[in-house]
Amino acid sequence: MAHSIDPSRNMIDLAGQSRERIVSLLKLARTFDDGAGLPKQDAELRTRLAGKSVCNLFFEDSTRTRVSFSLAARNLGAGVTNLTGPGSSIAKGESLVDTALTVEATGGHALVIRSGSAGAAEHVARHVCVPVINAGDGAHEHPTQGLLDVYAMVSAIGGGREGSFDLSGLTVGIVGDIVSSRVARSDIIAMTRLGARVVCIGPAPLAPKSLEVLGCEVSSDLDEVLGELDAVQMLRIQFERHGSGKAGSGSPPGVGSVREYRSLYALTARRAARLKDGAVVMHPGPMNRGLEMDGSVADGPRSVVRRQVSAGTLVRMAVLVDLLGNTCG
Amino acid sequence: MAHSIDPSRNMIDLAGQSRERIVSLLKLARTFDDGAGLPKQDAELRTRLAGKSVCNLFFEDSTRTRVSFSLAARNLGAGVTNLTGPGSSIAKGESLVDTALTVEATGGHALVIRSGSAGAAEHVARHVCVPVINAGDGAHEHPTQGLLDVYAMVSAIGGGREGSFDLSGLTVGIVGDIVSSRVARSDIIAMTRLGARVVCIGPAPLAPKSLEVLGCEVSSDLDEVLGELDAVQMLRIQFERHGSGKAGSGSPPGVGSVREYRSLYALTARRAARLKDGAVVMHPGPMNRGLEMDGSVADGPRSVVRRQVSAGTLVRMAVLVDLLGNTCG
Amino acid sequence: MAHSIDPSRNMIDLAGQSRERIVSLLKLARTFDDGAGLPKQDAELRTRLAGKSVCNLFFEDSTRTRVSFSLAARNLGAGVTNLTGPGSSIAKGESLVDTALTVEATGGHALVIRSGSAGAAEHVARHVCVPVINAGDGAHEHPTQGLLDVYAMVSAIGGGREGSFDLSGLTVGIVGDIVSSRVARSDIIAMTRLGARVVCIGPAPLAPKSLEVLGCEVSSDLDEVLGELDAVQMLRIQFERHGSGKAGSGSPPGVGSVREYRSLYALTARRAARLKDGAVVMHPGPMNRGLEMDGSVADGPRSVVRRQVSAGTLVRMAVLVDLLGNTCG
Repeated sequence: MAHSIDPSRNMIDLAGQSRERIVSLLKLARTFDDGAGLPKQDAELRTRLAGKSVCNLFFEDSTRTRVSFSLAARNLGAGVTNLTGPGSSIAKGESLVDTALTVEATGGHALVIRSGSAGAAEHVARHVCVPVINAGDGAHEHPTQGLLDVYAMVSAIGGGREGSFDLSGLTVGIVGDIVSSRVARSDIIAMTRLGARVVCIGPAPLAPKSLEVLGCEVSSDLDEVLGELDAVQMLRIQFERHGSGKAGSGSPPGVGSVREYRSLYALTARRAARLKDGAVVMHPGPMNRGLEMDGSVADGPRSVVRRQVSAGTLVRMAVLVDLLGNTCG
Repeated sequence: MAHSIDPSRNMIDLAGQSRERIVSLLKLARTFDDGAGLPKQDAELRTRLAGKSVCNLFFEDSTRTRVSFSLAARNLGAGVTNLTGPGSSIAKGESLVDTALTVEATGGHALVIRSGSAGAAEHVARHVCVPVINAGDGAHEHPTQGLLDVYAMVSAIGGGREGSFDLSGLTVGIVGDIVSSRVARSDIIAMTRLGARVVCIGPAPLAPKSLEVLGCEVSSDLDEVLGELDAVQMLRIQFERHGSGKAGSGSPPGVGSVREYRSLYALTARRAARLKDGAVVMHPGPMNRGLEMDGSVADGPRSVVRRQVSAGTLVRMAVLVDLLGNTCG
Repeated sequence: MAHSIDPSRNMIDLAGQSRERIVSLLKLARTFDDGAGLPKQDAELRTRLAGKSVCNLFFEDSTRTRVSFSLAARNLGAGVTNLTGPGSSIAKGESLVDTALTVEATGGHALVIRSGSAGAAEHVARHVCVPVINAGDGAHEHPTQGLLDVYAMVSAIGGGREGSFDLSGLTVGIVGDIVSSRVARSDIIAMTRLGARVVCIGPAPLAPKSLEVLGCEVSSDLDEVLGELDAVQMLRIQFERHGSGKAGSGSPPGVGSVREYRSLYALTARRAARLKDGAVVMHPGPMNRGLEMDGSVADGPRSVVRRQVSAGTLVRMAVLVDLLGNTCG
């Protein structure tokens, strides 16, 4: 019953998307921007997807992504139904595909799927006919995050790039646990495809040389690279993967302690002061303030952290309109 | 404070509904069908229940039923509020009736209730004034499931029955743990009331002779009955009731093992091949693929499993319009 | 990044609201009342907040408050997004403020926050720009509960007060665990500010003399005060705070047992019979029937318990329109 996937009818990963489609989605998102990064209050826009139902199937904890997809859908007049692991038939042992088929058969028009398993969204997309949007699958990809990071970065850096989303000439650093980060993968793919130089930075176990196959460079020395960066995306230390699961405990692989990690890889106020003029600071959230990034940096003038979140709603609106807008009528 | 219940203003069970009302609801559902089993995209329909709020009170796990009611309500322009056991005041020890009264008093227009206790929906309906829809109460009934199974079966079998929903001349088998299945009870009542011959099939502890009071026949030999069936509804082996609670472990009462159950009562590809021409295969889900039914049968040409799910949204729209549509304005 | 709070752009507590604003909100709520205490079915009202999104951030169990805010928002055409502790990024250790900033940045237009920590809503309001509504913060306040209790009481007592919400000449008793009740605090503030005499009644550890700073009187003898009361609000015995957490076990501080508490402070049928003509009986719910109040009293002619719940939707609609209505366009 599995079928092949049309990448233009789904959003499984950015690896499967052309530069043209990525740019086209970013430009569409721009048309929804009220100039301050929030969605336009526009009566036509508000009913663009009236009568459509978007189902969120989230099998992992999430705040910003689920809320962002929900608001994106609502901003377009679509209904939203939330399904999560507990409280759903997943608890009775139903397979992910059967759950997705069920949702499709009840009349849902798009599935937004988050799962701890790499490939989950693609697997579902091979079995259903409605568009599937990957909202994060294990350590694989989180494609709308890649789009929103580009959108927020370009909006902040400006310089005439807002029209073309051409990133050539820019150097972007991504710092931390790259190897297990779907955010990093989607960022690397989106940014290199749009022309940026991307440098992944972290201790070797978290930022191994093998990442270079994705088209990026790899470094273990943040201080060496810092002055070259036009933007730096700080990844969250994922304590739940390392050690006891409590923030502040455990230690990331490749360093002796959280303190050592911080001394080498945190974006402290001192390091932020050494960034180029105009360089911007990013974080996909949720943030451990005072660990991978100082609170004063997160809230400081270089930070585009909130702009990233706003951009999330805009690019998700773009993806929904792109996938659902043409079938209206 | 308890009052009597008007069966035409609630949907507690099919036992309390006349053949006429059942047919009327099924015909109303048919008017919402776009021909492919999905709800029509129709501007008038989309606002039929605008301004109405439907509250889902689900005290048991559910995917398809909750999503289906949610989408049914949204397809008609009604709002949906979800309440589940954890996270609600139920956790503070409030009674079901007090919770329902609360929801009613906040301005909800209909209550959809799922509970592990037989009689829960009726108990609530005796205390509130808004319509109550039973979405499954213990081993008692699941009336919209009975309606959707008839709808899907008739749509698949055709032969001019689509207009009348007259099932006379048809033989339907229901296989498995009949005695503890609210789906089976609602199916038996709906189908016999519409004229079908219904045969319940399973080991004696799961399909006891006493079921005959419902108007059906009882057999313990699937292979003997198989060739007579126009439709067969395979029930899920409820591992959470038998043994360890893990799918694939424990053994259903009346047989020595899951393997023995499967050899006697599963709808394998071999058994499916022995069905009559035109006979259809049903399953209310969630399904244990490869246990009560082979995956190849579930996905094969006789299967109406997905049609059942689609029909769920249509019949729930019909019930909501029937109960809420007249009070609009 | 913290900023000061404009009390007219938020609803953090009633202590920060003038009598004029309290009356103005109550009068606005009255305009939404269909005469039976339920929201008017009115097409203009139904789209008053179209295009707005309200986010519920609930970090404590709740039925009536969350449902009531949800229906209030939906009745006005606003969308509702629910975030609760489990299943959100809170589980990853994100701070309340970061979560709120996230929701704001995704395009939410108002935040409704319930938390076990006194000051949580205010803390968030200092960091976000969208209006914040406190739906209960620890033992501090629950301002919309104070508003709804006044609304329901005035609607029931009548006597020409419905136009002015002037409570002078009325004596209100609040009975039970006053000291740890945010409901009691908001009631005391609202009612005294509108001119009522308020008497808090309970054993000294639960109703200490120090409460008099709020402008109320304190008594430990319900039977002595009973005949003076025009309205009596019975608080729930919070078994989850005292003893084992199971209803019916543990004993409230200041009395030897639940039985003793009941003999001194419960609103039994006998006590209710001794109330003045026209006096009304209130309970903010969820209720332990047969403990702090007899079931026959809760369901009897003096009870305005359900009217309180209805009023909740009306006053929350008023607060939402007040905070969000002017920014529409």
